[in-house]
Amino acid sequence: MIEIKKREKYKLYVDNKPFFIKGVGGASNIELAAKLGANSIRTWSCENGEKILEKALQYNMKVMLTFELEKEDKCYFSENYKDKKKEEIRRFVKKFCKHKAVLLWNLGNEVNLGKTSKEAWKFIEELADMIKKIDKLHPVATIIAWADKKSLNSISKYCHSIDIVGINAYAKYFNKIIENYEQSLYSGPIIITEWGTIGHWESEKTEWEAPIEPTGMERVKLYEKSYEYIVKNSNVILGSYVFFWGQKQEITPTWYSMFAEWDGKGNLNGEPFAVVKLMECLWKNNKMPEILDISEIKINGKYGKENIKIVSNEEYDVEIVLTKKVKKLSLLVEVQEEEKEHGIAGENAIRPKTVEKNRINSKKFRMKGINKSGEYRLLVYVLNENGFVGTANVPFKVT
Amino acid sequence: MIEIKKREKYKLYVDNKPFFIKGVGGASNIELAAKLGANSIRTWSCENGEKILEKALQYNMKVMLTFELEKEDKCYFSENYKDKKKEEIRRFVKKFCKHKAVLLWNLGNEVNLGKTSKEAWKFIEELADMIKKIDKLHPVATIIAWADKKSLNSISKYCHSIDIVGINAYAKYFNKIIENYEQSLYSGPIIITEWGTIGHWESEKTEWEAPIEPTGMERVKLYEKSYEYIVKNSNVILGSYVFFWGQKQEITPTWYSMFAEWDGKGNLNGEPFAVVKLMECLWKNNKMPEILDISEIKINGKYGKENIKIVSNEEYDVEIVLTKKVKKLSLLVEVQEEEKEHGIAGENAIRPKTVEKNRINSKKFRMKGINKSGEYRLLVYVLNENGFVGTANVPFKVT
Repeated sequence: MIEIKKREKYKLYVDNKPFFIKGVGGASNIELAAKLGANSIRTWSCENGEKILEKALQYNMKVMLTFELEKEDKCYFSENYKDKKKEEIRRFVKKFCKHKAVLLWNLGNEVNLGKTSKEAWKFIEELADMIKKIDKLHPVATIIAWADKKSLNSISKYCHSIDIVGINAYAKYFNKIIENYEQSLYSGPIIITEWGTIGHWESEKTEWEAPIEPTGMERVKLYEKSYEYIVKNSNVILGSYVFFWGQKQEITPTWYSMFAEWDGKGNLNGEPFAVVKLMECLWKNNKMPEILDISEIKINGKYGKENIKIVSNEEYDVEIVLTKKVKKLSLLVEVQEEEKEHGIAGENAIRPKTVEKNRINSKKFRMKGINKSGEYRLLVYVLNENGFVGTANVPFKVT
Repeated sequence: MIEIKKREKYKLYVDNKPFFIKGVGGASNIELAAKLGANSIRTWSCENGEKILEKALQYNMKVMLTFELEKEDKCYFSENYKDKKKEEIRRFVKKFCKHKAVLLWNLGNEVNLGKTSKEAWKFIEELADMIKKIDKLHPVATIIAWADKKSLNSISKYCHSIDIVGINAYAKYFNKIIENYEQSLYSGPIIITEWGTIGHWESEKTEWEAPIEPTGMERVKLYEKSYEYIVKNSNVILGSYVFFWGQKQEITPTWYSMFAEWDGKGNLNGEPFAVVKLMECLWKNNKMPEILDISEIKINGKYGKENIKIVSNEEYDVEIVLTKKVKKLSLLVEVQEEEKEHGIAGENAIRPKTVEKNRINSKKFRMKGINKSGEYRLLVYVLNENGFVGTANVPFKVT
């Protein structure tokens, strides 16, 4: 039998001009994002919504504005919760639907991490329908964690007013997104609303469950590969928001952050990591220059995944490999306690305590012993004359 | 206003397997086409239909089988013509609809070169509808000359049973196909049913209207560029049929032909031109090797477009440039009268008379004078040890 199979192709248009979303996840550093070639930001709630819209307008950026929704399934059985939520969203949309910086409205972030009975999806549909009655100028989206077929099927079944599905997906299974999408019942357009490095839950771990963070150099490669996939599938992917355009504590202060923290002592001052340069190059279609970064890190000759254990009060040797030669090396080395309680679904965790912090100017160096046994992590930053900071860290145990 | 625009993406499936048409236009050399990686042939009528289907089956090739339709508009007002045509097609489809070599049925070739009033399109719809009632296993197409918006609009309006539009398009405006398609009302899939070199009507001409034929080397580049465009747009283009898989007289014996003629004297024996090798490489995704061919040809230092005129009975100098160095050069040089009456819409014309034919082994040579004034063309073939033949020709006038 000879058949023609049909699939949809989508493109986003802003005022009749094609608009491929070159977005950043995060509302800080908007000016820099615009300068580097981004054209959109996304939020996780409508907190500070007006401020963000104004700031975006100032730099000609569009906003994917999120209304927070609970993951807790019982909320969707509570008329009180739903009424309040509807009122909050109705008011916001009415007030800002003519704001020139609005790109689209988004209902919830990773609601599917909860139990998500059909009541949740039906409520999302109710909200989408309500928004579309108020505002006929902007599409409405909902964001799910991972290209989860069950959720995509539910959206297809219950959420006819949803125009776009946002998908948060990290590097490890990134190339399965379209496969899952195609196997699902949902056939509308998608946006990759969070993407970047490997997720800490999908990364290799030590015996004591400490996730191994990619080095700065490895991270650039992960971002590069994922973006290639996004562009390759731009028939259904309307664009993306790279994660995280800012600094946050999640496992480490660097894992998802695209900028260094401010340590208040002048060592680290919110410098961009190499992935920021990479995004500029991808957005502007330039070739990525070679940037000084760290490609490998070892303690006593062992990589992180080899379960590094050192005896308390004993000195240990650290060695890093750099991506290129450098005349005057300037490292910042920090030993931290391992993050104890992880934030839920990406909430900021408490920054672990610093045990030791030194400036060092050699690729091989000896660290003094730690007297208290426990789980630690050694972080190395390489300070770059071009204003970038290279990163690597490795978990270890003091016994 | 923020909008999502939707467009269709199509793929052809044969027995549930994706099938990108790597087709040849012509029913000769089927065995060779199959060997080189083609998977389909097309016809211009159902003459010898059974034989062609059997031959195709033997080499695992699929056939786009055409039922000839008149370009003359008055036929579509004649019940007699239409009844006979319906009967002819009904019988053929009934007889062969289960034949494993059938890929699709095609109604007419370039019917739009006639006046094509809506009666023509309505009759095509009537035929398509009739076929689909007999045969539910194969799509039905119609082929038009050029991605003509008016015809595409008419097909969209009158021919709802047409599944695919075949477009015959030559090199000069090839990259306008999708633009035209997108601006038309038709949004179904397309097949490029004739493509290859530049059309003689769109090529540069001498003062006396003799079209300038691309040299063998120029021709390879034209085919390469067009195929790239086909692959790039395979979201809506289901594949293509390269033209002409065989030998025909149209302006010259080489213009559209992908193989040399048989001159009956052992000089030319149906050898493939370099474009045949190119198609093999494109179908098999191989790199095109360097093939000996002609890149330039001049008479008395002038290119064809410079209106070469020579005085009767005066000798003239010919010079060719080759694509690569060759140890032992073997040329066949032929002077012909210029084609007098062109075939209509690609019908074979009468082969012009040969004035002179010589074997030569130098890139520069002197030809003896011609005593009768008139329009002529000098053809040069370079015989290649690998079995290929390179080509070039140039029109000139004897005054």
